[in-house]
Amino acid sequence: MANDTVLLNHGSGGKITHDLISNLFVKYFDNPILREQTDSAVLDIDVRTLAFTTDSYVVDPIFFPGGNIGKLAVCGTVNDLTVSGARPAYLSCSFIIEEGFPLADLETIVKSMADEAKHAGVAIVTGDTKVVDKGKCDKIFINTAGVGYFEEKRKNISFGLNIKAGDKIIVNGTLGDHGTAILCARNSIEYTNSVLSDCASLSLMVNKIVTITDNVKFMRDATRGGLATVLCELAEKHNIGIELNEDSIPVQESVRGLCEMFGFDAMYMANEGKLVMVVDECDADLVLYKMRKDPLGKDAAIIGEITETDKGMVVMNTGIGGKRIINMLAGEQLPRIC
Amino acid sequence: MANDTVLLNHGSGGKITHDLISNLFVKYFDNPILREQTDSAVLDIDVRTLAFTTDSYVVDPIFFPGGNIGKLAVCGTVNDLTVSGARPAYLSCSFIIEEGFPLADLETIVKSMADEAKHAGVAIVTGDTKVVDKGKCDKIFINTAGVGYFEEKRKNISFGLNIKAGDKIIVNGTLGDHGTAILCARNSIEYTNSVLSDCASLSLMVNKIVTITDNVKFMRDATRGGLATVLCELAEKHNIGIELNEDSIPVQESVRGLCEMFGFDAMYMANEGKLVMVVDECDADLVLYKMRKDPLGKDAAIIGEITETDKGMVVMNTGIGGKRIINMLAGEQLPRIC
Repeated sequence: MANDTVLLNHGSGGKITHDLISNLFVKYFDNPILREQTDSAVLDIDVRTLAFTTDSYVVDPIFFPGGNIGKLAVCGTVNDLTVSGARPAYLSCSFIIEEGFPLADLETIVKSMADEAKHAGVAIVTGDTKVVDKGKCDKIFINTAGVGYFEEKRKNISFGLNIKAGDKIIVNGTLGDHGTAILCARNSIEYTNSVLSDCASLSLMVNKIVTITDNVKFMRDATRGGLATVLCELAEKHNIGIELNEDSIPVQESVRGLCEMFGFDAMYMANEGKLVMVVDECDADLVLYKMRKDPLGKDAAIIGEITETDKGMVVMNTGIGGKRIINMLAGEQLPRIC
Repeated sequence: MANDTVLLNHGSGGKITHDLISNLFVKYFDNPILREQTDSAVLDIDVRTLAFTTDSYVVDPIFFPGGNIGKLAVCGTVNDLTVSGARPAYLSCSFIIEEGFPLADLETIVKSMADEAKHAGVAIVTGDTKVVDKGKCDKIFINTAGVGYFEEKRKNISFGLNIKAGDKIIVNGTLGDHGTAILCARNSIEYTNSVLSDCASLSLMVNKIVTITDNVKFMRDATRGGLATVLCELAEKHNIGIELNEDSIPVQESVRGLCEMFGFDAMYMANEGKLVMVVDECDADLVLYKMRKDPLGKDAAIIGEITETDKGMVVMNTGIGGKRIINMLAGEQLPRIC
């Protein structure tokens, strides 16, 4: 195995593991907590309620237009904390790497993680590396877990407790970009208007909004299963009706075209930088205004509202004047999307 | 693909993912926090300092004498928190599963995790499931991240700040059991005195000790790289000398025999229920006494001490009256041991 690839020894826990940690992970993720290299990171905290979440990332391909598995692993977990109403603070990061994986690619990925963590204002404070024999995993898988701070009054956003009829449903931009970018990358589709993944940390944009209003009642990032799945879950969990207006749902033309070509529906396509907000109607326009001022929300739109009728269901007013019921994703849209 | 196996759809984020979460994970891990199924678990905490750690588990085989990958994934992370001086409180749990993996095996693993979490007094509060195509991972990988509480006076255990010459080095039992059990399982070795993995959560035993003395100065679990690697790291990091007495280091006869047969050294073999403690000599006998009263410490022994001389080095007084220097593991002892 070449010297410029990951070796089984890199996962041994011995000297070569230590060198990898020092020369790569600690170098890029550098912060006082990680630098201690203790068994567990020691975190001094200033709140009484924490958010805690985890995701493993197995996206294929690992490099795609708009990002890579490392950037995604940071954004995804930052966003899970953010939509809970928490302020993301700390991440862990754990690699499972296939023997023979190029060290240069690992460095690119680690650097992306460091850059994105810095941008999102989180510190990567603890980690782990395992190496498995060639053929026993597909290149690299990354797990991140995240810890965030809750301000007392924002705890309820997690639970969506105060949702009521008339509340508006807002998305921060075009849907299906990530799923479509992966679809194209996987099938080596060259397209005039190539689609970039929307992979982004939403913490800064959301923070701007929740500091000006207490009327955000629920947030969720529309990842696997897309917008449709988020809304179906929400309707079912709270036994509320959701009415959507198809014409107001932002979808890029190129995404719409590619979805039609492959028989997919942008409503179910994964996003990695899009969230759904339920906002009291009194502040919906304010939130929309604020969202559109942020680069990550420039195509934001009010796409529907909570209704008294059709409890537990999501109903779409279609562009041609009809109605159709939106169901939860039943099969696999596209495996290994994140 | 048969109905009794994991399908790609189980990782889609849609209905079938939800059913798997409800019928398996929430069923076994059941607790009020997990039951909410929010994006991030919401944790009410009562301390100012937290421990935060993560590990991915890729052990091969996934079922082995004395445990399985699920039990290991709980014990390993509980132990990382424990040896930091923290009280383990919450775990996340993230699965990467190969398409076609038997659901019955998944249930066995999940049940083991639930049992071990209950035993160790931790709650599994958040999780994730990804499914990859057949051949893209080896059966199942599990990541757990853990959050624990620090009592203020125990924060220093993480850093090993107060270690000085004369402090005693204690291990809680026989070394190399886990590594040897995996070695045998992997090579289908049937042995009269079959070796069981020592895979166990050390939190309860450690808690009994740290509540009776403030003189535990450092702890670390001797996992990948074994006892030798832990001590070499310790000597190097604090620039202290460590002297060991070979005759006092507990190793099962069967482990010694198998290690000789395969050309391994028990000093470097992985453990999953063994830790190294550095204790002020004034309380070393008390700690040893207390440890031996616990089932997980019945073979505990004082194996050496911190010295003024040989700074940065680990020196073994051998059974035949010589001295040898113990180095950090340079190559790979046994891949995928945890």
